[in-house]
Amino acid sequence: MQFPSDNWSGVHTKIMEAILAANQGSVPAYGGDDLTERARQLFCDTFERDCAVFFVATGSAANGLALSQIVPPFGGILCSDVSHINIDEPGTVELFTGGARLIPIASEAGKITPDQVHSEMRFYNPPEQRRVKASALSVTQGTESGTLYSIAEVEGLCEAARSHGLKVHMDGARFANAVACLGCSPAEVTWKAGVDVLSFGATKNGAMAAEAIVFFNPQQAEDFGSRLSRAGQVFSKNRFIAAQWVALLTDNLWLDMAGKANAAATKLAAGIASIKGCEVVWPTQINEVFATLPDGVAEQMREEGAQFYDWLYPGDKWSGNLQRMVTNYSTSDKEVDFLLGKLELLLT
Amino acid sequence: MQFPSDNWSGVHTKIMEAILAANQGSVPAYGGDDLTERARQLFCDTFERDCAVFFVATGSAANGLALSQIVPPFGGILCSDVSHINIDEPGTVELFTGGARLIPIASEAGKITPDQVHSEMRFYNPPEQRRVKASALSVTQGTESGTLYSIAEVEGLCEAARSHGLKVHMDGARFANAVACLGCSPAEVTWKAGVDVLSFGATKNGAMAAEAIVFFNPQQAEDFGSRLSRAGQVFSKNRFIAAQWVALLTDNLWLDMAGKANAAATKLAAGIASIKGCEVVWPTQINEVFATLPDGVAEQMREEGAQFYDWLYPGDKWSGNLQRMVTNYSTSDKEVDFLLGKLELLLT
Amino acid sequence: MQFPSDNWSGVHTKIMEAILAANQGSVPAYGGDDLTERARQLFCDTFERDCAVFFVATGSAANGLALSQIVPPFGGILCSDVSHINIDEPGTVELFTGGARLIPIASEAGKITPDQVHSEMRFYNPPEQRRVKASALSVTQGTESGTLYSIAEVEGLCEAARSHGLKVHMDGARFANAVACLGCSPAEVTWKAGVDVLSFGATKNGAMAAEAIVFFNPQQAEDFGSRLSRAGQVFSKNRFIAAQWVALLTDNLWLDMAGKANAAATKLAAGIASIKGCEVVWPTQINEVFATLPDGVAEQMREEGAQFYDWLYPGDKWSGNLQRMVTNYSTSDKEVDFLLGKLELLLT
Amino acid sequence: MQFPSDNWSGVHTKIMEAILAANQGSVPAYGGDDLTERARQLFCDTFERDCAVFFVATGSAANGLALSQIVPPFGGILCSDVSHINIDEPGTVELFTGGARLIPIASEAGKITPDQVHSEMRFYNPPEQRRVKASALSVTQGTESGTLYSIAEVEGLCEAARSHGLKVHMDGARFANAVACLGCSPAEVTWKAGVDVLSFGATKNGAMAAEAIVFFNPQQAEDFGSRLSRAGQVFSKNRFIAAQWVALLTDNLWLDMAGKANAAATKLAAGIASIKGCEVVWPTQINEVFATLPDGVAEQMREEGAQFYDWLYPGDKWSGNLQRMVTNYSTSDKEVDFLLGKLELLLT
Repeated sequence: MQFPSDNWSGVHTKIMEAILAANQGSVPAYGGDDLTERARQLFCDTFERDCAVFFVATGSAANGLALSQIVPPFGGILCSDVSHINIDEPGTVELFTGGARLIPIASEAGKITPDQVHSEMRFYNPPEQRRVKASALSVTQGTESGTLYSIAEVEGLCEAARSHGLKVHMDGARFANAVACLGCSPAEVTWKAGVDVLSFGATKNGAMAAEAIVFFNPQQAEDFGSRLSRAGQVFSKNRFIAAQWVALLTDNLWLDMAGKANAAATKLAAGIASIKGCEVVWPTQINEVFATLPDGVAEQMREEGAQFYDWLYPGDKWSGNLQRMVTNYSTSDKEVDFLLGKLELLLT
Repeated sequence: MQFPSDNWSGVHTKIMEAILAANQGSVPAYGGDDLTERARQLFCDTFERDCAVFFVATGSAANGLALSQIVPPFGGILCSDVSHINIDEPGTVELFTGGARLIPIASEAGKITPDQVHSEMRFYNPPEQRRVKASALSVTQGTESGTLYSIAEVEGLCEAARSHGLKVHMDGARFANAVACLGCSPAEVTWKAGVDVLSFGATKNGAMAAEAIVFFNPQQAEDFGSRLSRAGQVFSKNRFIAAQWVALLTDNLWLDMAGKANAAATKLAAGIASIKGCEVVWPTQINEVFATLPDGVAEQMREEGAQFYDWLYPGDKWSGNLQRMVTNYSTSDKEVDFLLGKLELLLT
Repeated sequence: MQFPSDNWSGVHTKIMEAILAANQGSVPAYGGDDLTERARQLFCDTFERDCAVFFVATGSAANGLALSQIVPPFGGILCSDVSHINIDEPGTVELFTGGARLIPIASEAGKITPDQVHSEMRFYNPPEQRRVKASALSVTQGTESGTLYSIAEVEGLCEAARSHGLKVHMDGARFANAVACLGCSPAEVTWKAGVDVLSFGATKNGAMAAEAIVFFNPQQAEDFGSRLSRAGQVFSKNRFIAAQWVALLTDNLWLDMAGKANAAATKLAAGIASIKGCEVVWPTQINEVFATLPDGVAEQMREEGAQFYDWLYPGDKWSGNLQRMVTNYSTSDKEVDFLLGKLELLLT
Repeated sequence: MQFPSDNWSGVHTKIMEAILAANQGSVPAYGGDDLTERARQLFCDTFERDCAVFFVATGSAANGLALSQIVPPFGGILCSDVSHINIDEPGTVELFTGGARLIPIASEAGKITPDQVHSEMRFYNPPEQRRVKASALSVTQGTESGTLYSIAEVEGLCEAARSHGLKVHMDGARFANAVACLGCSPAEVTWKAGVDVLSFGATKNGAMAAEAIVFFNPQQAEDFGSRLSRAGQVFSKNRFIAAQWVALLTDNLWLDMAGKANAAATKLAAGIASIKGCEVVWPTQINEVFATLPDGVAEQMREEGAQFYDWLYPGDKWSGNLQRMVTNYSTSDKEVDFLLGKLELLLT
């Protein structure tokens, strides 16, 4: 009954094997090795175009550093009010951008709309030196509420952003889950839709520590290596991060794994929704289920060993009891059934 | 018909005389002069206690620097969503704090409540390393909407803040207007109510460029001179800033001036409210009137020479036409009557 | 016997009159007024070209902000080891650039050479992501040691800088003194010689608080207003700063005043050099005299009311006793003679 | 003939085995797991006292973040002019401290002395708001020149630092090599000698990516988790970093490995010194050899497949040709002999 977070999971066998295989003698440090080059090539193949790819160790670093490249220190970043950069990263964007400000937009089910972007920009456009210069829109795909933007929705947000001169960042900590559910090509939902830079996460999807920053226009990445280096995010033995990506991007392993996590969540959500007194509050489109349970039930479940979190938001975003359950590539049907069984037992 | 902002006004005669009188020969630079010392003493007298007082040149600098002393770089600052630090200062707080984040609270008539502070803090308390560490509450007195907090309301906010370990900053760009209206002692509405540090503005109140940062507990000001110096806010000829404060704080000039500005706004608001089709949307407690006028009227007034601004907010804070009119110490009855006359003419 | 610093001086009568004259009614805030426009035009006239001009309140702010526009946060700035930015501004450059690093070069008599620039750049060129990206050279004119660069020397430094892709900043806190001594046009020693941006100070030259940042290529100033605003350096009543510049730049007042200060220093230096046991250690080319006096003499002079400072450097830059004496526009022959007389009395 | 850097090496078998063994099912993220706890305990055992230990992914991050905890944004950090933080990290210290300044001291063979600390501090003590507040001394052990401080020398530097109110940071990217050579206890050369916080590196010593920050006084680590988190240096699957440390700190593996690297360097240095025309310029005390070779020889060696770097310094620190050769835990006698053989062949 382990549903606390996808980052509690271990490393997929194939990824671990790739790490082991990379441990061959002396190779150039700081990403000058062949394996890093191969990983970079696989990104270009995956996205069907030349990309500038950089490797970092955490998703927070990926988001903050990606944004630092497209937003000036006196800039502003429109984002969902429940985005990870807004409520789960303590000043990371501010640190790496040198002080840019988040402009949170009230989301529904984790999602924001082009109209909301236009509405905010009535205040920020034309730019005025006494206000932050709104410079980018950050879109989370899949969202922190377990939902997805369709390709058309991403296109709509990007169009709205561009009409105000904003660059577009995509927080893809669960990008694999999103693509696996949409069944689209990675290109369609990113640069073809108007995204400039993607934080592409694999750690939640069975890697050890592997996050990538992908600039779809390599020219936008000028001097980005200096930003990484100053942030302490250039790894001397980068081959071991590259190896993880090579494994993931070979034979669609990343999508297979994400698909399994999604399927487990779908099953879990359906099961919970069918239990009296329980409600799944948002569509379960990736690997996260958000549900309300009758009073005291979550606590009882946890006493019996279940692992999932009470989910909080700042201010008056959500009142009452919300539970988040997250699946991952290794979640088994048995685990899902076991949790559902326990829950049913308590509630009938 | 000049109501664009109180900072369009000139310098009060007595303040200009004080500046002239300060121009006597060679005196120590960087605030080591007697006049600076005298100004500091007058602050202590005015607030009825020992204070640590620092002089800066703009209100934005005062807010950002004051907050930088009580909030760590990974900290968060609760504030009204319409506060000057949130919508009219482009990253100043982030710059001086080294990256702290504003946590805007949805205000009504510019004001926030203790309950809202408690509601936000359900998320931020206890502190969690993956969230910003909420560290301070910034209260604007009088507010950006022309309203006031009563002494009891300030006390309530400070109590709520303290119960969560937050320090309290007061943005007093229009502090004089607030005290003049409340008729209280400056101490009552600041440190006696629980405020730690005050940005005390005089530029909007007839000074040339005179803002002060007042720490009510001098021990909280440790090394603050270094913060000012690095920000380029230590003035070699500080005597000329000090002279302005000496003039203002002598014989209650600051309160007389603010009282005049308030009275003009009160008269203006009453006049507008009595004209058909016009509405004053928030109580006019200091020197700002916020009103809605029938379609096209503001534009017509401006064509005829009236000076006041369309007032915008980000997002969906306010839909429709809002006008802000600001009075100052030198606003005459005649000017108010003239504007009201024009308005009446257009609307009848 | 007041020679502590030129910033102990008062405000020149003509400048004060200009401030008084500017106090006429309501005018647009934040530099939207006519006087600011007129000051801007006078800068263009003075430098014989279109410039982008911005006003700030202190020299530290001018330096830090000017550099922030031409140096990225991961950049480096070559400068003299005794430059004001390196030893008298506590992290200002770092604050405003968002973390750029000073690369101090060992100066002689306050001056550095093109060869030294080349020598440093052997390490920093070509750029390498694990090193700061050397991006600018900051040249102090006149220097902190009372010396000057000739036009040819400025040209030489700028050429060296450009050959490595560095932009050039000039710290002109005493620019007036330099131009007055060189007898050249302001253009010759700045943009015609290769300077990109100038911090032009007037506070040490008889203003109240008036520093300007001048970009000789206006396109390099994009978004610079946002940088000023976020730094709390946009003045609502900017007309009073503009008035000072209008007075200074009219009829060459700035050069007359600086010339007087220079002449007093020349006289003082000659006098000291002629007294047995005293040595003027560097050529006195502007308004600062650096001298060594026999043991105990400086202390005795100060006991008798003389004002000048023991001058220190970090590390092993200078061992032994160094005294700095600074003249200003209002220093009289009588004052100089009085000090020399005292000194002679003590030493004969 | 692979001597480019110790970070080109692979991962030691025992460390890789520990990583594999850590891949067991679901465990709490962000360092809440048992293995992380065990690693922490091993640090306390190794240093013979209670410590606050944090894990980061690179040495640059370790240095910058450790210093950010003990130095204010307006602070200064004394360090060797050839320290890694000064010449091989592009603004990392500035980024994480929020703008503190490095104060480089001219080193001999990579080392600085207590007298030099005193000499610098004549300028910085007592603190003056117009200068950076010198707050820490950073000592590199072993140095970037392949040398060591004896225990007595570390004590001397710490005493000098404390006498001026400076905290002491030790950059221990090659701490293992230093301790292995000194044959002392890790405690003796750190907290017992006066060090406050240590950047302890293992990546250069056969780990995959494992750096630790060790505060010897846990109270100095208050809120440090927030600093890590905001820097994107809190790893969700921290167990895999912890596993590396557990392997290293068990049965003195870290010292065995470092000892092997040292021995190889000693042998290499002795060999080079005995070849006509070659000079080893500094004592080889850890795993780095710095040598000058006759003109053209380094290039010839590289053409034949040898890997080592031309070593550069900024400015006039070193003129002429300097070569750096670095050994690691896996360097074999055969490799050393092979390089020496080639060299001899070329030079006889």
